[in-house]
Parts: sequence; C-alpha cells; structure tokens
Amino acid sequence: MNEQTYTIGVDFGTLSGRAVLVQVENGHEINSKVYEYPHGVLENRLPTGESLPPDWALQVPNDYLEVLKNTIPVLLEESGIDPGQVVGIGTDFTACTVLPVLKDGTPLCNLKEFENRPHAFVKLWKHHSAQSHADRINALALESNERWLDRYGGKISSEWQFAKALQLLEEDPEIYKKMDHWVEAADWIIWQLTGAYSKNICTAGYKAIFQDNMYPTKEYLERLNPLFKNFVTEKVDWPIAQLGSKAGGLSKFGGEITGLNPGTAVAVGNVDAHVTAPAANATKAGQLVAIMGTSTCVVMVHDHLAIVPGMCGVVEGGITPSTWGYEAGQSGVGDIFGWFVNNFVGEELIQKSHKAGQDLHSYLSELAEKKPAGSHGLVALDWESGNRSTLVDHSLSGLIVGMTLATKPEDVYAALVESTAFGMRTIIEAFDSSGVPVVDFIAAGGLIKNKYVMQIYANILNRPIHIIKSEQGPALGSAIHAAVAAGEYSDIIAASEIMGGIMRDAYLPQLETVEIYNQLFHQYSKLYKSFGQGDVMHALRKIRDIALIEKVN
Amino acid sequence: MNEQTYTIGVDFGTLSGRAVLVQVENGHEINSKVYEYPHGVLENRLPTGESLPPDWALQVPNDYLEVLKNTIPVLLEESGIDPGQVVGIGTDFTACTVLPVLKDGTPLCNLKEFENRPHAFVKLWKHHSAQSHADRINALALESNERWLDRYGGKISSEWQFAKALQLLEEDPEIYKKMDHWVEAADWIIWQLTGAYSKNICTAGYKAIFQDNMYPTKEYLERLNPLFKNFVTEKVDWPIAQLGSKAGGLSKFGGEITGLNPGTAVAVGNVDAHVTAPAANATKAGQLVAIMGTSTCVVMVHDHLAIVPGMCGVVEGGITPSTWGYEAGQSGVGDIFGWFVNNFVGEELIQKSHKAGQDLHSYLSELAEKKPAGSHGLVALDWESGNRSTLVDHSLSGLIVGMTLATKPEDVYAALVESTAFGMRTIIEAFDSSGVPVVDFIAAGGLIKNKYVMQIYANILNRPIHIIKSEQGPALGSAIHAAVAAGEYSDIIAASEIMGGIMRDAYLPQLETVEIYNQLFHQYSKLYKSFGQGDVMHALRKIRDIALIEKVN
Repeated sequence: MNEQTYTIGVDFGTLSGRAVLVQVENGHEINSKVYEYPHGVLENRLPTGESLPPDWALQVPNDYLEVLKNTIPVLLEESGIDPGQVVGIGTDFTACTVLPVLKDGTPLCNLKEFENRPHAFVKLWKHHSAQSHADRINALALESNERWLDRYGGKISSEWQFAKALQLLEEDPEIYKKMDHWVEAADWIIWQLTGAYSKNICTAGYKAIFQDNMYPTKEYLERLNPLFKNFVTEKVDWPIAQLGSKAGGLSKFGGEITGLNPGTAVAVGNVDAHVTAPAANATKAGQLVAIMGTSTCVVMVHDHLAIVPGMCGVVEGGITPSTWGYEAGQSGVGDIFGWFVNNFVGEELIQKSHKAGQDLHSYLSELAEKKPAGSHGLVALDWESGNRSTLVDHSLSGLIVGMTLATKPEDVYAALVESTAFGMRTIIEAFDSSGVPVVDFIAAGGLIKNKYVMQIYANILNRPIHIIKSEQGPALGSAIHAAVAAGEYSDIIAASEIMGGIMRDAYLPQLETVEIYNQLFHQYSKLYKSFGQGDVMHALRKIRDIALIEKVN
Repeated sequence: MNEQTYTIGVDFGTLSGRAVLVQVENGHEINSKVYEYPHGVLENRLPTGESLPPDWALQVPNDYLEVLKNTIPVLLEESGIDPGQVVGIGTDFTACTVLPVLKDGTPLCNLKEFENRPHAFVKLWKHHSAQSHADRINALALESNERWLDRYGGKISSEWQFAKALQLLEEDPEIYKKMDHWVEAADWIIWQLTGAYSKNICTAGYKAIFQDNMYPTKEYLERLNPLFKNFVTEKVDWPIAQLGSKAGGLSKFGGEITGLNPGTAVAVGNVDAHVTAPAANATKAGQLVAIMGTSTCVVMVHDHLAIVPGMCGVVEGGITPSTWGYEAGQSGVGDIFGWFVNNFVGEELIQKSHKAGQDLHSYLSELAEKKPAGSHGLVALDWESGNRSTLVDHSLSGLIVGMTLATKPEDVYAALVESTAFGMRTIIEAFDSSGVPVVDFIAAGGLIKNKYVMQIYANILNRPIHIIKSEQGPALGSAIHAAVAAGEYSDIIAASEIMGGIMRDAYLPQLETVEIYNQLFHQYSKLYKSFGQGDVMHALRKIRDIALIEKVN
C-alpha cells in the first residue's frame, strides 16, 4: 500500500464511459477502465421496440450508472488503492445530452408508463430532428434582436436544450408537462453521485442560453409557443455552480455504486471537450484544443469577449473561471471516416488490406499518403452529419466533387479527411478574423493516434500540431477538476500545470503541399459558401423526409 | 444445307468485336461470336511499356483484324453455312476512333520505328486528353463565326478528329508529318476488307466537320496552327460514300481472314450508334434510339434541319440517306455504375450478395428498388467521364450531394443510375425545345437487360420505354446495311421494316414516382447549370493534372 493521493475522472462518451485513476501530485494515470453502454445509441428503435423517425438519437440513463458500477470498483481493486486515498471524483459528459426528470431526478423513461415514449428518453447530442424548432428559435431571436444571439455566433443549434425542449413540448406535451427538470446528463450524473441537483455553468452557458446571469425572457419564449412561456422558470432555472468547485460529497448511494467513501469530494459536472483544456495545458489565451473523435469540439479561452460568426458559444467561466471560454465544432469527423470505410471500400482493397495484415483505415491511409497532394482531383464538404460551425445547420449534408472513373476508395478517403481539415481551417479563420486569434493548435481525442490525419491537418492548417500527452484527455481533465474540488490545488490553472501536458510540434506542415492545399481550400470555401447559403441540400432533405414519412404511413 | 441468304454484321465495340449471322428475309439472328481485343484499351502503357499521361485511351489496330479472323470463320462453320450463301458483310465501329496510316493503309504504330510512340496508335473515342485543343478549336470557331459550329450544338468535342489531330500535330509532329491519312477505324476496317479506302458520310459528318460538302477552311485551320493549314487537303479529304451503299467487293486478303468469298458485297463503314437505328425500326422522324452501354449514344432522324444546343451533331444522310440525322450522347453511363460497384461497395453488401447468390449489380438494384423514390436524399451529376451533351466538356467530373452517415451503397448506386436518367432527360428536353421533338424513346445496348435501370428511366423520363428486340443491335444494323449493299432491299428503311424490331411499351412510368423525380430533376438541373458553367471542376482538374505531372517528373 502506497500513501499517494488520487482522484478519479470519469468521461461519459457517445458509446461508452471511461474512468481513470490519477495521481494528484503529478497527473500520472495509474489505470483506466472502459465500459460500453448496454443500449448504445438508440437510432432506430426504443428498447421496447418502438420505431424512431429519421435523425433521432437517444440513450438510456441507467447505462451511465452501469459505467460507474463497472469501472470504479474494478479500478480500485486492480490498483490496490484504498478508497480513502481517493480524495475526489470528477465527471464529464457529451453535451447537449439532456433528459426529462422528476423532482427527485428520476428519468421519465424509467417510469413504466413512459417506457415506450421516445421523448421520455435522453436526447443524445447528435439527436438532430429538432432542426425546424431551432430554425424558429433563431428566426424569432433575430427578428426580436435577442441580446444573447450573437454569443452563439448568430444561431443556436438544434442540438441544444431549447430546441430539443421545444420539440418535446410540441410532439409529446404529456411528457413535457410531467417533467420537473430538463437536465443535462452532465448534471444528472452528479445528482446521482451526491444526491443533490447541482447545475454547472458550462452546459448552462453553452447549451441553455444562460448569459449575463439570465436565460431568454418569458416574452420571447411565449412567442415561440404560448405553452413554452414558463419553460425557464418551471423546468430549467436552478442555482449555478462554477467549474472546479465542489458539487458536494459522495452520497451513500454514490458510495455504493462506486466503492468510494461517502463524503468524497465530487466536482461540479462538465463537458468532455471543455474539461480537456486543463489536461492539454490549454489555459492561456489563444491556446485552442481540438478534441477530435467521431465529431470535433474546439475550445479556447481568451481574456476578453469577442463575437465570432458561427461559433457554438462564448461563456464567461465556461472553461476556467474568470476567462471567456469559446467553443466551436464540427458535427462529423471520425464518424465520416468510419462511415466511408465501413460501407464504401470495395473487395479489392479489403483483400489487399487483409493480405497486408492492416485494418482498412491504416491501409487506406498508407495508399493515400503515397499519392501527391491534390492528385485525386477531389474536394468534399464535411457535412455528412450537418455543420456545427460556422453554419450551425444540421440539415446540410455531404458533397463530393471531382470523381472520374479512375477515382479509387483511397482518393475519396483522403478527400474526406481533407474536408474535415478544411472545416477546421474555416473555424480557425473565423476566430482569427474576430479578434480572438488562435495561437496554438493542440489536438486531443481519439484521432490523435492517426498519423495520416494529423499530418494532413498540419499541412492544411499550415501550422504545427501539438498533441495532448494523455490518451484519455477528458477523463484526465475530470480528474484535474476533482483535484481542485478536493482542495488539492488552488484552481484549475495551477492543477493543469502539474497534472496536464502536451507534446509540442508533434507534426509540422510539409511545405511542398501548402500551396496545393491553399488552392483546394479556395475551392472548398466556394462550395462552403454556395451550398451553405443555397437551397439544394435543404430541398434534398425535404424530399427525403417526405419520402420516408410516406413509407412509414 | 439450307438455301437461305445471309448477311454478316460486325460490331467493333470498346473492348471486343461481335459478329452476327443474319437471315436476310426476316432478320433472324442465326448465330453470333464475340472476340475480345487482345490489347483491350491502353490507358496506362503501350505494349512496349511506354507510360501514358492521364486521360489517354489507345488501341492496337491489328486487334480489329483478330476479331474478323476469330469470329466469322467460326460462325460459318458452326452454322453449317456455305460462304456462298453470305451475300454481304457490314461493319460498325466506335467513333471517333481514329488512326494515322500510310498511303496503303498501314497503321503507323505497326512500323517498328514508331512502336513506342503513343501518337502512332489508334486514339479510342474515349481518349480525352485533347480537351485544350478542342477548346481552342471552339474558341476560334466562335470568334470567326464558322458556318459549321452550330451544326455541332455550338461546340465540337475533344473526342473528334480535329481535336485529336491537332494534339497529334503539336505533341508529335514527326508522326503527323509521316501520316498520309487520318482515318476513322470505321473506314480502316473496310479498307482492310476491300483493299480500297472508302470514306463514309457518317463519321465524316459527325466526327470530321464535313457539312454542306465542305470541311473547315484553310484560313481557319491556319489560324489554329500554321502547320495545320493543309490538314484537310493533305490528310482528310477523300470521296464520300453514302450509308447503305456498297464500298466494294471483298478482296483476296479480306476473303482469307473471314473465310467468305472474294467479291462478297461490303457495305460502307458506319458507327455503332447510328447503325442501330434501322435495327430498332427507328427510321421515322422523332424516333429516338438510345444505345445504352458503357456510354450512351442517342440518334434520331427528322426531315428538317434544326439547331439543338449541345447536340453532338446533325448530318444530312448521317443515319439514313436524305434525312437529317441527329446525334447526342452521354460519355459515361454503364461505366459509372461499374466503377462504383467495382470500387465502392463494402464488405457487408458483398457478403450478403454472395449469400443471396446474386451479382452485386442485381443485389444493389434489388435493395434500391425497395426504397421509395427520393428517400436516399441524394442527387448526383453523371459526369465521371465528362459531359458530351449538352455541355460538350470532358473536363467536367462527377458530383454527389446529400450524403449522411446513414447513406448506404445502394443509395449511391440509385443516385448514379438516376443521374444518368436525368442526363438523358436534359438531352430530350433540348431536342423538344429546338423544334425536333422526341416522339418515341427506344432503348438499345447492354443496359436494356437491367430492369431496374430501365424502370428508373421510364419514371424519370415520364414516358414509355420501347426496347429493341435484338440483343446485338449494332451488329444487326450492320447486317441490315449489308443486305442493302448487296441489293437485297431497295434501301435502309425497307430493310429495317423487315429485319429490325422493337417491343413497344416494355416499361411504363410508375406514376407515384413522377412528381418526386420532377423535384429531384429540378435540383439536378440547378447543379447542372452551376457546375457546368462554374469553375470548380475545372480548377480541380487543373490541380490534379499539375500534381500528377509533378509526380511523373
């Protein structure tokens, strides 16, 4: 038995949760455990068999508790750590991932009477069927010049609390009426651990339009729908907790499911992307962290407020207290590569990759790397999952142009990887031209293992890529927050300096490619503008939705 | 031994030649033989190993003789037909497929000294690297208001004789100087059979800018390149022969390689698409035949001259004597489906198709058929091989828009099939609005076997599809021409009525899809216009070509 002090960070992702045990004095990650959600993402059916319309994505809240039960006790046991040595626990979550609950925190989908009602479940961040509600929210906000609109780059997203809640109200008013709180999963999990509802500033600011200590007004909400008038006061409003502070001590129930001692400090809830910043030493102005996985979230602090077109949001204290936290993002990145590789790589390459003993991603990357930049003649728009920044429109869709009969799967793969890098460049240029320039680009997330992707990003962004040291940045970030909540460090910045870390200049641009990618980016930007503003993609979406609805009926 | 009279038609396609033995009195096809060109299409290297730049497509002329040697004698033997019962032979060819030859018809690539010179070989129709030459030809013709320009829809193609010859002159002047004739393969094969050069009106008119008994003027050619001034007089000009007439009798050499009697009537050369019209009973005004295979050629006669934007050409006597023959086309159709199926269908569907015991085309068609029209949310531009009509631009390329992470291979397959049908609708609308309306749509070519494709065409064109009865339309058409050349019928129309045939109303539109496809066609048309006129595809092609050239150097 050693006498070290530890914290535990738990990162709740899209498909699984990951707990990591971290040494407080140096940030060393001692051990980690991953547990997949038993129900994964519900996109076609509820567990009871109820079918779901297109663009839905739900989860089952008890799956999150299963993560705690199936990771933390094993972590402790395997590491030979006494629960008393764990001084704090922190968590982070995908967002906006939101659910309707009763006063005591019981999810409505846990009630037998609502088990077959889609709207009673957790709406996962990538639930994309509230676009028409978001459109109305945005149109009215623009018309009535709501003070908060430009804090969100001029548009709020269909992924966020207000759009998802308006959809809930209008499509299943009974569930809406029954719910006492519309709660972020990030806060719900803290509630389960501590026994008390604690509302974090991060999701309140970025996902629930909480700005300058206010939510949208009753007048505004009433104009959206008279029944929505009291949404804030009845379903949302709750005292706000700052990041890095202690939400409370672990409850008896929290102790039972984790194996930790009741009373252990529990940090205020947080979002996976934002909590990665301290793990990546990105606590200074202009240090941008891109958490690149199925989607990409971008977070950056600056010490002043600026209005950036198409950013997801800027929130005071949203990343670290007393700074302005900026967020932007791309709704699909690794998802897009996976979709292509799983569906669109033909027999010849599959067999060659088997022969070479490589998975398809590696094999395609190797083929693509051998071809000169630009030689595939393609450019793509990375909108297979919509566009979060800078267009904030989930009805947009993917585009590939330039194919010939000589185009091979590795060419399209390369074009898709490049398209996401062009998307990132578009975001960086929006920050740069809005008075909050990007000084450092730090990559985190699952895609940092992919050297091909990282090199393409260095080439297309034409700047060095620094890489987070931890392979589990969000979980480490949560452990850092836990250390602060437990009083082991004075604040997040101090904890980050000791417990976080990056590899500087891990990738540098290959200079001979820079001009070619500038030319391709110019074409990308033209398509970005014309299809972002044009109506082709919206028309196609409408035709599709009508065809699918007619099929169901 | 029967006492019937027969003709033989030989169709020289892109990858193989096919000979068919036909009964003159009723058009019954007795037997047929296919022989693949030993060298196929040279796209990467010459037989000597010399590498070829992008967009080249060459052939070896002796391969055509191999077809004759390996089909006709077997046909006769298998059928127990005495050579004396064969009264005529007719041939048709892809076009513009063109080669440089000496005075006696010897191809320059057959000379040892030129065996490693790409420009000495046959340039296949789909040799697409003379676009810059075509651009200059068109720009100058527009500027100097050449009388022939609007006979070709306002643009001549990079596939045709003048563009390919200008490329030859400028890239390999020694070969240019050495050649005595720039001859269509359609005429070269007749030369081999009869021993005399006979120049057919069809390729002269459609591919060599022969209009109103004149070629382009010396003044015009000189302005393109001073060394090109005498191109017509020195390399092209030759007496013109009408379709259905007799080019001559089979020579001794022709008899040796075919096993037919010397003196047997040989019909004037012809083009595969145009010769299909009599096989499909399409000899009346407005009866359009679409020969749908790797690419699609569209031919139609009318009794008056009209100017159709983006048509390939209108030639008096180009299909039947004394009518105006219209031609239009799509550079890639079945090619595009094949490209997708061979490269972009992933493991899951491959295995399912194996399990179902179906080839991938059938399996994808079956999956696509089950989904409602429009439900894939996609629209594509069918330009993977450029656009022949109505844009006449081979630097254009493919585009797909509307993908989401739920998009499956069968969705893209459907979108590609639909895109070619939208391309056909665009061509038909151009005829309809130019005073030469399409009365009947008759499909011929390899794709008529594909019921899924045919039904989609009926739905998208919103008209009945009639199908040619013969599965080898061009070869039957050539046999019809042979019967006329042999004097068995008074003219092509009379022979067509007896020897040709169609199944009327083989496919009718599914009415519930018509409006949906109208909406998708509207989107297609917008993309058609914006990418046809815009510069994105041209910029990508330029970036690609520079990248590939830099790699070679």
